[in-house]
Amino acid sequence: MLQVLADHDPVLNPRSVAILGASDDPDKVGGRAIRYMLEFGFDGTIFPVNPKRSQIQGLSAYASVADLPAAPDLGVVCLPAKLAARAVAELAEIGTAAAIVMTSGYAETGEAGASAQKELTRIAEATGMRIIGPNAQGIANFATGAVANFSTMFTSVAPQDGPVAVISQSGAASVMPFALLRETGIGVRYLMATGNDADLSAPELLTRVLEDDEIRVVLLYLEAIRDRETLIRAGGMARERGVTLRVLKPGTSAKGAAAAASHTGALATEDRSVSAFFDRHGYQRATSLRDWLRPVPLLLGARDVGRGRIAALSHSGAVGVMIADHAAAAGLELPDFAEETRRALHDILPSFGTVGNPVDLTAGLLGDNAMFGRALTAIAADPNIDVLQVSIPVAGDGYDVPALAEASAAAAAASGKPVVMAGPQAEVRAVFRARGIPTYDEDLDVVRAIAAAAARPEPLPIVAGTAPTLPPRSGPLDEAKSLSVLAAAGIRCVEHRVCVTPEQVLAAFDEIGGPVVLKGCAAEVAHKSDHGLVHLGLTDSDAVQAAVTALGDGLTSLGLPFKALVARMERGSRELMVGARRDPVLGPMVVVGDGGVFVEVLKDVATLAAPVDAAAARRALQELRIWPILQGARGAPPMDVVAVCQAVVGLSGLMEANPWIESVDVNPLLVKPEGQGAVALDALVVPAQPEGLA
Amino acid sequence: MLQVLADHDPVLNPRSVAILGASDDPDKVGGRAIRYMLEFGFDGTIFPVNPKRSQIQGLSAYASVADLPAAPDLGVVCLPAKLAARAVAELAEIGTAAAIVMTSGYAETGEAGASAQKELTRIAEATGMRIIGPNAQGIANFATGAVANFSTMFTSVAPQDGPVAVISQSGAASVMPFALLRETGIGVRYLMATGNDADLSAPELLTRVLEDDEIRVVLLYLEAIRDRETLIRAGGMARERGVTLRVLKPGTSAKGAAAAASHTGALATEDRSVSAFFDRHGYQRATSLRDWLRPVPLLLGARDVGRGRIAALSHSGAVGVMIADHAAAAGLELPDFAEETRRALHDILPSFGTVGNPVDLTAGLLGDNAMFGRALTAIAADPNIDVLQVSIPVAGDGYDVPALAEASAAAAAASGKPVVMAGPQAEVRAVFRARGIPTYDEDLDVVRAIAAAAARPEPLPIVAGTAPTLPPRSGPLDEAKSLSVLAAAGIRCVEHRVCVTPEQVLAAFDEIGGPVVLKGCAAEVAHKSDHGLVHLGLTDSDAVQAAVTALGDGLTSLGLPFKALVARMERGSRELMVGARRDPVLGPMVVVGDGGVFVEVLKDVATLAAPVDAAAARRALQELRIWPILQGARGAPPMDVVAVCQAVVGLSGLMEANPWIESVDVNPLLVKPEGQGAVALDALVVPAQPEGLA
Repeated sequence: MLQVLADHDPVLNPRSVAILGASDDPDKVGGRAIRYMLEFGFDGTIFPVNPKRSQIQGLSAYASVADLPAAPDLGVVCLPAKLAARAVAELAEIGTAAAIVMTSGYAETGEAGASAQKELTRIAEATGMRIIGPNAQGIANFATGAVANFSTMFTSVAPQDGPVAVISQSGAASVMPFALLRETGIGVRYLMATGNDADLSAPELLTRVLEDDEIRVVLLYLEAIRDRETLIRAGGMARERGVTLRVLKPGTSAKGAAAAASHTGALATEDRSVSAFFDRHGYQRATSLRDWLRPVPLLLGARDVGRGRIAALSHSGAVGVMIADHAAAAGLELPDFAEETRRALHDILPSFGTVGNPVDLTAGLLGDNAMFGRALTAIAADPNIDVLQVSIPVAGDGYDVPALAEASAAAAAASGKPVVMAGPQAEVRAVFRARGIPTYDEDLDVVRAIAAAAARPEPLPIVAGTAPTLPPRSGPLDEAKSLSVLAAAGIRCVEHRVCVTPEQVLAAFDEIGGPVVLKGCAAEVAHKSDHGLVHLGLTDSDAVQAAVTALGDGLTSLGLPFKALVARMERGSRELMVGARRDPVLGPMVVVGDGGVFVEVLKDVATLAAPVDAAAARRALQELRIWPILQGARGAPPMDVVAVCQAVVGLSGLMEANPWIESVDVNPLLVKPEGQGAVALDALVVPAQPEGLA
Repeated sequence: MLQVLADHDPVLNPRSVAILGASDDPDKVGGRAIRYMLEFGFDGTIFPVNPKRSQIQGLSAYASVADLPAAPDLGVVCLPAKLAARAVAELAEIGTAAAIVMTSGYAETGEAGASAQKELTRIAEATGMRIIGPNAQGIANFATGAVANFSTMFTSVAPQDGPVAVISQSGAASVMPFALLRETGIGVRYLMATGNDADLSAPELLTRVLEDDEIRVVLLYLEAIRDRETLIRAGGMARERGVTLRVLKPGTSAKGAAAAASHTGALATEDRSVSAFFDRHGYQRATSLRDWLRPVPLLLGARDVGRGRIAALSHSGAVGVMIADHAAAAGLELPDFAEETRRALHDILPSFGTVGNPVDLTAGLLGDNAMFGRALTAIAADPNIDVLQVSIPVAGDGYDVPALAEASAAAAAASGKPVVMAGPQAEVRAVFRARGIPTYDEDLDVVRAIAAAAARPEPLPIVAGTAPTLPPRSGPLDEAKSLSVLAAAGIRCVEHRVCVTPEQVLAAFDEIGGPVVLKGCAAEVAHKSDHGLVHLGLTDSDAVQAAVTALGDGLTSLGLPFKALVARMERGSRELMVGARRDPVLGPMVVVGDGGVFVEVLKDVATLAAPVDAAAARRALQELRIWPILQGARGAPPMDVVAVCQAVVGLSGLMEANPWIESVDVNPLLVKPEGQGAVALDALVVPAQPEGLA
């Protein structure tokens, strides 16, 4: 058994647990935690509390909290809702460090429940006792047997300590990964189902779990994100300690988000902001239950998958073809072997085998099982290879499966490179697993597991520049004011003059020279060109005069005063867009992508969570479909990607330094050929509504 | 055991099998088929042929083919390559109907082997005896026990007859699905690994399998496609008989395609053409082993998934959220329940359960297992629901799993709608499976299985119009000639004149009037604008004159005679592209997508296999990212999608009627507002190289 390092944490590692609403029936909610603690060897003290019994499951019971001989580390409340708050208060009074409220009927049921839940939060705040739940399935520590958790799963799937923690706001989502991991022999130390997170939240528990040096992977299920700062802090801790955080956050679809909202009352947040936030802070976001768990065996392995460069070995050509396809789709490489490796394979393989990567041993393996180990040893030594993918599509009579598994384990040990196996036969997989080799049903899973395990969080970006703090403004800002905000943040804006008389427009044209654009300046008008307020390519005074007249008429007909913006008509290579918005929970998000009128339709846009540095901005641009165009497709010169990145970083700083800004849209940001910059031609800055400033 | 209907087929249902190279050792290639036929109850005749033994595995052996008492239906050749061709010829001589050549060392090994393989093909053609292989693992019929197949898999995974056939060019890819299907209790009747397909090919075997009325699903693994017509015919047969064809065709990546080519010597074909071809002919293409098999349990179920409208039932809100997400991603609906269903659920569920879709029974299920069946019955009766997705994230002590499974089976039987289950506990799944409920580890698999089972092949499109047969041309066609080919196929082309003198250009400008385009006509020049051969927007004679001079200079400097095209300057809503190419194996493919210079970069293009009708063309357009723009995004009028579809259908007919055309590119096809058509502004028709005409 691994040693528990979180020695003094009354939640993760309690020495004494009181059960309020304790039941003598080991299959009732109030009985199950006691049953588990007795069954799984908890050597602390259990205090059953029940006014009607003196003995519960063979333990002395107490009539009330006041009767307890000492304050427990942890109190567990399994009482009806009408009794729960009072019990929680009593626990706090005697100095209990933390309480798990398993009782349901709180915020998950509506208004009345939400108000009852506030009372629990109030008690926690007033007394300093931390509360987990309500509506919590509870917490389990399988290293110590402190199982304050009422899931029935542990009656069916035997727990075992291990370097994994599961922290989930849902009970079901906590035990599903437990069952699937246990089926592959992986142990789980902490299993936490936190429910409504009224006080001590899932992210806070994560920071506590990360204090345990023996935890190497944490599986998080979050339906409602409320605590940005703690998630950021936990992300940093995990990165420092080399712990992998894999998070399942559903609600990616409208229907799913609606179901989650009705389930948790969570604030709606854009799903791409969620992904950007997790990406920014080192959390790997999973798409399904299987995807969540897939890399865990590799992450727990003794050997690192490095950059995930695969050597594939099988006795089937077809399998090799499929692995090559899957690797390409996952962005992984099957490197060509070094000449030495090819020569070695040539001597080992039958004449019609394939000495390239993927290696095909052919059905000749059946007559010469030892060929497998020789080939594996040869490719494991190749300097271009990080990880060995062994695929056994068939192994009936004549295949020495124990020898193949043994050879795999030996090759891994000798080379220091992990071996991962796939095969459709459960009993063949079991033989490999018994030798410490991670196994999967199909090669696609192996490739995806390697890809996930090879994905390392980037170092935290250091933001190159920060923007000044600008005086807060309210109400919508017109184009001129919006451009001035951008300029203050160091973003290059088109040369322009703001004019409040027709004469000033003519003077501005003379000053700027060359073709200009004349636009009405009116924050109230969304689509200016629909109202005759946009005039492009004005090259002489007559044209400017005619445009001024039309513009004046347009503004007058809208009941607006004369205010216009005269700007240089810029030339560039492509119109991009950059923008930012403040997510109510996750903070500032910056977007960058292809611009023009069809931004919303074509959606070639990337979202990044602030703070963003130039490297992150560049990676985001590289993921756009237009990236090859930015690099200069079809003989055109490359565009000034550096300037675009600077604008993105500038917006990120602007949002961070100025909480009064709700959103910024710059469309177009005209990008010019490399070295010539990028210019904001139009902008809209929207301050937060006054209530949003609170 | 199901009855075999393919009564008289000597390959699928042989009455007598001769084994050449028969071995007394049941674990040798020459011994395994005999062992299996004895073990799996083959009641036909087995003729072991081996000059060195009179008895083999307890059967009388024959010294040579000539010594056989009768010609077998099927001969199996397990001899070394140097003896194989002669043995095949001897089998043909005595009137054997078909032979499986298991021997390897043929086309899969290189030039010499390919030439030896040609000799086998020659024997088949000369004698009429059909040959499977060489390099074939063989054929098995588990209904009769005629297992002429040397895989070791059947020693480890017990066969059972069932309504599934596996037909694979690879041995490994034939037994992997067998093992995984058998693990879920599904039986397989035919298991065929055909190897190099020198004569009787995998597609031909497919047409034979489709004669067996009891086969409902065929799993095909094709690495090399050589026989387009047979695949088309089989697709039609399967459609008529309601058989689902699921095909795994690897080589989607460059590395995978290279590995496949080295493995099979297959002709390279564009992967998107492969997908288009399968889609056109009713084959469902899978992306991995799991994806290939996923819907099989549903396809074999007694009840149809209809349009795949899901009602989800679980005792976890989190599971419901995840199912909603997965359904949205798979394009499936979780319809709102009818008012009656909601009322019924309201009475059944605990107060804090969710009566919407997905339904959350909450942990209250634990105290009232009967609630499950009542809720399931209520939602099964809903008229908007096709299929019931039951998710059991946890079921330990207190859950009456047999009752839940029984209620599921009863709801399915009563409603006629399938129930599908997911859960992480293997033993819980087993209970449901025993009641005939298909089960999966995770909900994502359920949703994807339903989506695949609900996908019905479209009825074969009837092509509205056919194009005329044009006289074949050779060499590259210039723009004028290319446009004339399009016009002959009924595709509307820009009004234009072909001019061979400057004077003709001026006359053409007078005739067409308004702004025109002047382009040099030279098939040799790829990027005309780079050579001053394109002049847009010419509105007066002076401009035309200047352009003619520049054009003439440009042509002269390229050493080309004066030939120009004067075309009306058209206005439209968006530049699309349409095109076609002839795949060497799969036939004509038509592409349609967003046009402009960045077609290759942005790749917003769909590929369709000819013949294409307007409905198929429209479906392809709907899958483009620009589809909302074609419909009139941001207040613009909708575009003439009907005209674009006509152009696609016209190109399809052109390619079908004129085998001399290798490829056609129309970029741009200028699409105008609805009702105003679409006009080809530029075109390039490339005839096949003379050797391609053969």
